[in-house]
Amino acid sequence: MSPTNTSTDEFRRRDGRSPQDLRPITITRKYTQAAPGSVLIRAGDTIVLCTASVDESLPPWMKKDETRGWVTAEYNMLPGSTSPRKSRERAGKVDGRTTEIQRLIGRSLRAVVNLDALGPRQITVDCDVLQADGGTRTLSITGGFIALVDAVASIAAKLPPQAPVFRTSVAAISLGLVADRLLLDLDYSEDVRAQVDSNMVMTGSGEFVEVQGTAEGRTFTRQQLADQLDLATTGIQQLTKLQREALGAVWPWSD
Amino acid sequence: MSPTNTSTDEFRRRDGRSPQDLRPITITRKYTQAAPGSVLIRAGDTIVLCTASVDESLPPWMKKDETRGWVTAEYNMLPGSTSPRKSRERAGKVDGRTTEIQRLIGRSLRAVVNLDALGPRQITVDCDVLQADGGTRTLSITGGFIALVDAVASIAAKLPPQAPVFRTSVAAISLGLVADRLLLDLDYSEDVRAQVDSNMVMTGSGEFVEVQGTAEGRTFTRQQLADQLDLATTGIQQLTKLQREALGAVWPWSD
Amino acid sequence: MSPTNTSTDEFRRRDGRSPQDLRPITITRKYTQAAPGSVLIRAGDTIVLCTASVDESLPPWMKKDETRGWVTAEYNMLPGSTSPRKSRERAGKVDGRTTEIQRLIGRSLRAVVNLDALGPRQITVDCDVLQADGGTRTLSITGGFIALVDAVASIAAKLPPQAPVFRTSVAAISLGLVADRLLLDLDYSEDVRAQVDSNMVMTGSGEFVEVQGTAEGRTFTRQQLADQLDLATTGIQQLTKLQREALGAVWPWSD
Amino acid sequence: MSPTNTSTDEFRRRDGRSPQDLRPITITRKYTQAAPGSVLIRAGDTIVLCTASVDESLPPWMKKDETRGWVTAEYNMLPGSTSPRKSRERAGKVDGRTTEIQRLIGRSLRAVVNLDALGPRQITVDCDVLQADGGTRTLSITGGFIALVDAVASIAAKLPPQAPVFRTSVAAISLGLVADRLLLDLDYSEDVRAQVDSNMVMTGSGEFVEVQGTAEGRTFTRQQLADQLDLATTGIQQLTKLQREALGAVWPWSD
Amino acid sequence: MSPTNTSTDEFRRRDGRSPQDLRPITITRKYTQAAPGSVLIRAGDTIVLCTASVDESLPPWMKKDETRGWVTAEYNMLPGSTSPRKSRERAGKVDGRTTEIQRLIGRSLRAVVNLDALGPRQITVDCDVLQADGGTRTLSITGGFIALVDAVASIAAKLPPQAPVFRTSVAAISLGLVADRLLLDLDYSEDVRAQVDSNMVMTGSGEFVEVQGTAEGRTFTRQQLADQLDLATTGIQQLTKLQREALGAVWPWSD
Amino acid sequence: MSPTNTSTDEFRRRDGRSPQDLRPITITRKYTQAAPGSVLIRAGDTIVLCTASVDESLPPWMKKDETRGWVTAEYNMLPGSTSPRKSRERAGKVDGRTTEIQRLIGRSLRAVVNLDALGPRQITVDCDVLQADGGTRTLSITGGFIALVDAVASIAAKLPPQAPVFRTSVAAISLGLVADRLLLDLDYSEDVRAQVDSNMVMTGSGEFVEVQGTAEGRTFTRQQLADQLDLATTGIQQLTKLQREALGAVWPWSD
Repeated sequence: MSPTNTSTDEFRRRDGRSPQDLRPITITRKYTQAAPGSVLIRAGDTIVLCTASVDESLPPWMKKDETRGWVTAEYNMLPGSTSPRKSRERAGKVDGRTTEIQRLIGRSLRAVVNLDALGPRQITVDCDVLQADGGTRTLSITGGFIALVDAVASIAAKLPPQAPVFRTSVAAISLGLVADRLLLDLDYSEDVRAQVDSNMVMTGSGEFVEVQGTAEGRTFTRQQLADQLDLATTGIQQLTKLQREALGAVWPWSD
Repeated sequence: MSPTNTSTDEFRRRDGRSPQDLRPITITRKYTQAAPGSVLIRAGDTIVLCTASVDESLPPWMKKDETRGWVTAEYNMLPGSTSPRKSRERAGKVDGRTTEIQRLIGRSLRAVVNLDALGPRQITVDCDVLQADGGTRTLSITGGFIALVDAVASIAAKLPPQAPVFRTSVAAISLGLVADRLLLDLDYSEDVRAQVDSNMVMTGSGEFVEVQGTAEGRTFTRQQLADQLDLATTGIQQLTKLQREALGAVWPWSD
Repeated sequence: MSPTNTSTDEFRRRDGRSPQDLRPITITRKYTQAAPGSVLIRAGDTIVLCTASVDESLPPWMKKDETRGWVTAEYNMLPGSTSPRKSRERAGKVDGRTTEIQRLIGRSLRAVVNLDALGPRQITVDCDVLQADGGTRTLSITGGFIALVDAVASIAAKLPPQAPVFRTSVAAISLGLVADRLLLDLDYSEDVRAQVDSNMVMTGSGEFVEVQGTAEGRTFTRQQLADQLDLATTGIQQLTKLQREALGAVWPWSD
Repeated sequence: MSPTNTSTDEFRRRDGRSPQDLRPITITRKYTQAAPGSVLIRAGDTIVLCTASVDESLPPWMKKDETRGWVTAEYNMLPGSTSPRKSRERAGKVDGRTTEIQRLIGRSLRAVVNLDALGPRQITVDCDVLQADGGTRTLSITGGFIALVDAVASIAAKLPPQAPVFRTSVAAISLGLVADRLLLDLDYSEDVRAQVDSNMVMTGSGEFVEVQGTAEGRTFTRQQLADQLDLATTGIQQLTKLQREALGAVWPWSD
Repeated sequence: MSPTNTSTDEFRRRDGRSPQDLRPITITRKYTQAAPGSVLIRAGDTIVLCTASVDESLPPWMKKDETRGWVTAEYNMLPGSTSPRKSRERAGKVDGRTTEIQRLIGRSLRAVVNLDALGPRQITVDCDVLQADGGTRTLSITGGFIALVDAVASIAAKLPPQAPVFRTSVAAISLGLVADRLLLDLDYSEDVRAQVDSNMVMTGSGEFVEVQGTAEGRTFTRQQLADQLDLATTGIQQLTKLQREALGAVWPWSD
Repeated sequence: MSPTNTSTDEFRRRDGRSPQDLRPITITRKYTQAAPGSVLIRAGDTIVLCTASVDESLPPWMKKDETRGWVTAEYNMLPGSTSPRKSRERAGKVDGRTTEIQRLIGRSLRAVVNLDALGPRQITVDCDVLQADGGTRTLSITGGFIALVDAVASIAAKLPPQAPVFRTSVAAISLGLVADRLLLDLDYSEDVRAQVDSNMVMTGSGEFVEVQGTAEGRTFTRQQLADQLDLATTGIQQLTKLQREALGAVWPWSD
């Protein structure tokens, strides 16, 4: 295995970023009104609409007298979000990648939610990708958390005041080894060339919710994993700050 | 049958419109970049993202040596576009309403396209409803036409210059009898109370592409149909003007 | 647009009809015994078996304590009804045309039924096409109404005597512009050449239940629509008379 | 096991038949015109429409350069053929009984066909049950054979004259032990009470194509099976005679 | 039809058996522990894992207050059980052969069970073929019965002691005419060449549960059927003895 | 977050293992003969049958003139592998967990294969779980690698001798935090109580193929992740040794 290329001085990415930079991120809360949480989040050319809907009943697989709630997620790419066009997943067959992604989003959001405090209701966070240029799953988690906070805020009157629904915040970022160089927040052109492709989900307090590192073309060493964890931590800190600014007074914690 | 209530002086709709008014409409071309046609169209609280993608091969059902092209449409409501949330049509079952709508959109767009001039390629117009407050199918046609023009413009270099692809423009509008009063461009609260529910698809030159009038709670007379046709004609003229302004230099016709 | 060709003196249709003629129609009530309504209706070479079955429970989407009833329809073409053979719609995928047609039949029948008077039960009208030679959807409505009347008659003892279930009768007819000439009741060879293809659903009292005019190869003018409405009205009057004769004493109205 | 009750003098079936009697059978050839073989066959209140369609290409699972042909069958009960109504098998799921029946019909018809003589084409025999009162699968075989002969006759000009397509004729009959008494050609009311339920498929020359005996409520002895085989042979002889009369000059064999 | 070849002196099958021989059979009870009945049964190179699971609730189609129980079976071939590999039946479509087989297994097991004595619970017997070399369906019945007995034994404490669950034992065997010679217990190489293919399901007491004889390439005479029944009876007696030895003290009957 | 409990002296797991112990593992190569690779692998009470089948054509999504090969995996739990019984995934819907697992197995195996050296053919590794007691996905990878090596050996004559198909070996192990204590190779009773659930896929040379750490009930720190990586490395070394012993002379590397 060749060593990771760590010299960054002369290296430039397609959009001019340095290897450690996030793409420019914009967050629009209350983008639509039908769902109580509705966030349009954009990172470079990737655009995801995250809506969070509250259902006052529980999914069929939960017991009828259950007192806990549930949070789930669905992920979908619109056909026009890529070129060439992506066929709709309608023919009774959700593809494996979609399933894997929406399970990851759901697990990540549930990891920071006190389901007991939520009470016997379900919140579904829908992440519909309007344009895909890499990092759609991690952006869905970062934006989905904001939509989820708004949805919970919309039912605040029904929740017990003393038990906070959120234990901490959650955000996610992708990174990868491209041409033996570690890059943060890959766009699609970088992602297809990645030798190692990782997605890290972390809390606002710096702990891990999910660590996923996948060898695509070469395996990776313990040191290369450590470098990824360092870089991810930096990225998540910036994302947490953006989430907090976007939520303003609805951010569940004071300083 | 009670006669249609035609006095309009004192009547006010929820959003302050008069019975003959369209909702405020905004059109954003090139909303995303992945597809050559991408139009975000908004009428009141209804928002539809129309993208048009070009595929240089033909659908399987067409003959291999076909020289004509094809235009088709798909329609979908995002789960968060309504309250309560609408389940995704993933379980192998596209519901009847969706099928009916996307067939209408496809027929309407094809009616103004010279498929021979398009050549052996397929354009798919995807109409994804981001928020639904009535009139999603007609807005999809009006916005889908703009996306389609942009998509055709993106392949202009491949098309024969002498044979125009578009014969005329197309737009659509809903109208209905609500409490015995004829209203243009129904929002959802009006649509659910409509006794007669109509969708009219017309060309920029004032001819009909599709006339659909449906009795929901009462049948309608020949005169009531005539009133609908008059009002639809007025609405389509305004929509055609908006389409032309949005497309600017890409509008396929000079004066 | 070329003007509609209205000279009829020398024009002859494949089966010798004039443009304004219906095909010969035969109606056999009680064709089978398993369902309370069972009508074999034939127009030229198109043959549809319409059966109406009563289910004393409501469909799952209706509320449990609902006091209204429901009428729905299903439409299907037998594989041997066409040449070449039509594949069965079994692979989990009902095609769009089928969906659209059965929704039209259901809406048309419900438009003349007082669902409150029907009480909390569902009637399903199955229209199975034994042979298809054009006009299957309109013949399904015309025959389906007769089957529906028979099914309602079979449960007369359970219905409140004072509230009639039927508000009026309903029948339907197709027409179209073929070679710029307006024809009533198209057979398949005419239908495939139609430039404008319309289906009109009307009540026995001459009002409209559904107006559907679709441009196939050319758009149509306001005057051409008016001509269609005139011709449809004539056709529906004849069909209503045939329905009445077939039902005899079960026809829900005295003169 | 109680012995089979063989005294028949005083026993009368619901419709007055003796235990060894077939129901009255009527056969209408060329019932519809779209398919080259079209037979409406009726036994008592069971009515099946058998159509046979010729496809000049082979099913995908056969090799491209195959010189043999193929015969297959599909079976379906119309929703209105029973009371209560039978749901359509559209939701992507053909039930086990249907699959089993249509495989039996296909095997039985193929057993008498020289697939080499048929040449590289497929004939599909569709058996659509218009009314079901027991014995639908066996009646489908008996009627399907007639439709198949007509379909083969329609392509006689394309077939090699010297190699006959049919080796022999085929017909089928049901029988069963009801209240310990052996009955031929069960109607539905008898079938639901049958302790042993058998379907025998035999050639016109008295050999077996398929023997199926199934214990429903009691097992059966070697002697009871022998009694069934005797009675089936008698029934098949009568059915063969009816097939021959119906086909007249098209019957593939002279005396 | 050529006469059956009955001379056996010089004839040798691929594995050296004589025409009347079963393949060597091994039975391993309690092969796994998760299910109360778990039998690995092997005949030559055919290996089936039969597990029987008890569910203390009834299938949805049974009435809620039903006091009888139910026994059902599922059959499946693992992809690696054959060469070439067999695709999994996951795409929403269980093939006809599978359906037919699992219905046969279920019927055969139920034929010897007193469902009233079982009480309101369901036992599912899963027959998963680890390696397929012919005779998988009959081996599934023979092994499935043993798993079923073990499953019933596991709930003995819940069953009424006076009403035995099993009326008799059941086993099954295949046989066929290969090159005009009658062979018992066909392996795959024999099965594909069989002119007549039969499966006989019989009780330990020598009565028939299911007789299935199918002409594949030639029809068969009454005498040929009789020969099959004789040979099957011999085979079943051996299988019953093996079942009894395997079950030992759990065998439901004393001498 | 409470600190990880690292004292191990007095702690005993249900089966008597210490926290750092693997379960006893047995590996049976050539368990069946139909597939060229067939491995029955057992860890404690978890049993997986891994078969590897070679298909000399490529999957449809690969280009026709592709010179590389492909390796894919399918994962399935037999219904009787768990208590209560697990329903088969036949109803057109493979559940998300299954999809996720089989994608992981496929990626892990491909990571050590030189697809160019494999040539234009596909190997499918089927992992069918006969009994599930935790760790089925990691055991599938460990056993699947052995089956894959055997399958490649079976086509050695077709492969270019100079380009080795395998770059290194691959194995996998689960670990988790249970009651704040880090355990290797969880059984089911431990897995359901795990607060953090990890699966590590590593090569025989100690590099990472896939790192997956998932917070189930609590998030985890950087130090806790490091502890997991250490323990996984120890486990993988033992598994690699077992793989090597099982493969004997077929192990692709000399010392």
